[in-house]
Amino acid sequence: MKRITELKRDIRFVSFSAVGGYEEGIGPLGKNFDIIDNSGKFGQKTWELAEGEMGRICLNTSFTKSGLSHTDIDIIVAGDLQNQCVATSLGLASFGIPYIGVYGACSTCTESLMILSSFMNSNPDIKYGAAVTTSHNSAAERQFRTPIEYGGQRSPSAQWTSTAAGSFILGDRGKVRISSYMPGRIIDGVTSDGSNMGAAMAFAAADTIKSYFEESGEKSDEFDYIITGDLGRVGSDILYDILKNEVFGFETIHRDCGLILYDSEKKDVHSGASGCGTSASVLASHFLPMLEEGKIKKILFLSTGALMSPSSLLQGESIYGIAPLIKLEYIEDI
Amino acid sequence: MKRITELKRDIRFVSFSAVGGYEEGIGPLGKNFDIIDNSGKFGQKTWELAEGEMGRICLNTSFTKSGLSHTDIDIIVAGDLQNQCVATSLGLASFGIPYIGVYGACSTCTESLMILSSFMNSNPDIKYGAAVTTSHNSAAERQFRTPIEYGGQRSPSAQWTSTAAGSFILGDRGKVRISSYMPGRIIDGVTSDGSNMGAAMAFAAADTIKSYFEESGEKSDEFDYIITGDLGRVGSDILYDILKNEVFGFETIHRDCGLILYDSEKKDVHSGASGCGTSASVLASHFLPMLEEGKIKKILFLSTGALMSPSSLLQGESIYGIAPLIKLEYIEDI
Repeated sequence: MKRITELKRDIRFVSFSAVGGYEEGIGPLGKNFDIIDNSGKFGQKTWELAEGEMGRICLNTSFTKSGLSHTDIDIIVAGDLQNQCVATSLGLASFGIPYIGVYGACSTCTESLMILSSFMNSNPDIKYGAAVTTSHNSAAERQFRTPIEYGGQRSPSAQWTSTAAGSFILGDRGKVRISSYMPGRIIDGVTSDGSNMGAAMAFAAADTIKSYFEESGEKSDEFDYIITGDLGRVGSDILYDILKNEVFGFETIHRDCGLILYDSEKKDVHSGASGCGTSASVLASHFLPMLEEGKIKKILFLSTGALMSPSSLLQGESIYGIAPLIKLEYIEDI
Repeated sequence: MKRITELKRDIRFVSFSAVGGYEEGIGPLGKNFDIIDNSGKFGQKTWELAEGEMGRICLNTSFTKSGLSHTDIDIIVAGDLQNQCVATSLGLASFGIPYIGVYGACSTCTESLMILSSFMNSNPDIKYGAAVTTSHNSAAERQFRTPIEYGGQRSPSAQWTSTAAGSFILGDRGKVRISSYMPGRIIDGVTSDGSNMGAAMAFAAADTIKSYFEESGEKSDEFDYIITGDLGRVGSDILYDILKNEVFGFETIHRDCGLILYDSEKKDVHSGASGCGTSASVLASHFLPMLEEGKIKKILFLSTGALMSPSSLLQGESIYGIAPLIKLEYIEDI
């Protein structure tokens, strides 16, 4: 099985942005976010529309930073957690950009960047493409669990869905390159506990990381970090158990976006952050800036998704995980 | 804006299959379906699992026809209509093939083939890839409307969600080539009536078809058919109104999968078939066999999706449409 695609075309991050709500603003990365709306409403009348508008604002910020407008973008790849990904389609419609909708649960950010770079690699006439990923705590809570007004109790392994968006414009300039990608496989998380999705996704992350090193022949010490999306504390510990004898020094170079977004002193998020906006906003506000400044040179970036629905949980089905991967490198142009 | 990608690599349909339920079996294409399960249950205990199993069986049939097995396939691109696309992830997990999940509402079939051919074009080491699309009437009715036991009345513009799957294996052999693709744009359907989705999607189909001829410089009389996914009677009539002065002879060469799948004498489906399994199964059971035999030589194939969720309809939002396109050609190898 051939899983890794090395991109022939030199595709780089032209610009990237992160937008979030109150909880994200008071977190350790809050000052790196481009826009924080403490109300989480983004001027909209429903949480569902608020999520779409957050994505639109986020992409608009990336346009401003890059000096590009929506008419310069030939394709957009995007998704969210709402049923039928409706936040994304309503939020991005006004741009009029050709659109590819993806559903990868919380793996959407990496999945989108992978698909976008494939489209750009297949067609050199596509000069610029965009990817957007969003999640919204209030929209997710009432869809997946109960409306927040109910004040439902959460278990210690549960995670906090972020109100966050990340957007990325890819093109032929910038200092960070996507050099290869590898899709994830659908791996049984061996649990049907919807309050323990970090555990359910850990096996998929392990499968991807192990397979990547086997197929590429690269070594873990070539990388500054190996980053996962939102395994949280519980999922990360399971991942260490699986990989401790497989990937040299894994625990030292591993970072999980779900353990970076919030400050556990200020906000009790139990096992960590989740939601597909987590890996998207942490990539845009933390890892890409570090890469762009050359503080780190090479990373493997995985978003992690839990493939389930409220119905499948009620019906007692297992939660499956998926973890696509992209390799990002700092390019020092001479 | 550059929307069309001409595929450099010669990517062909190695095999394709259609699977359906009772209504599909008694329709005009019933004899061309590979497998019909009159119960619609496919041996499963829930409609949701039945949809996933239908997809799995359909892909397995394509393996058998091609002489390939799941270990020969490097990537699978797939989706369905269930919340969080859970039918697909549960149904296809056992194959262990790297997976790209898409959400394009009823445009999933064309969207999947487009993404799959892009991945294969980007990486010549991927010898074979697969695409699967499913929808299930009973799973869709209780998710989008009411459980079928309620016997809710349907309006004349409503459509019948098909219980159908289409699967496709792409590779370097076969007689039908995907020569180019073009993603759709998110276009306002100017209605919030969930019983009139054909109308909502017609504008997106018109945008794609008009833009295709403008950008390619090709003429409509070069094509045997221009095919849409599931506009039904109402949507097709709107499309004729929009395109009558734009695309020469459009009404003559237009076919809509939603008007082909069922026999209106045997089954009152109101405005026609819908559901993403419609265009997938009609492509696999009707148009691809005609292309493979050389009865037709060149078609434009669009699946049409209505971007909405039950929540967005209840909140009064407009239904947006999307219509990606692929160009398929019969190749007479000398």
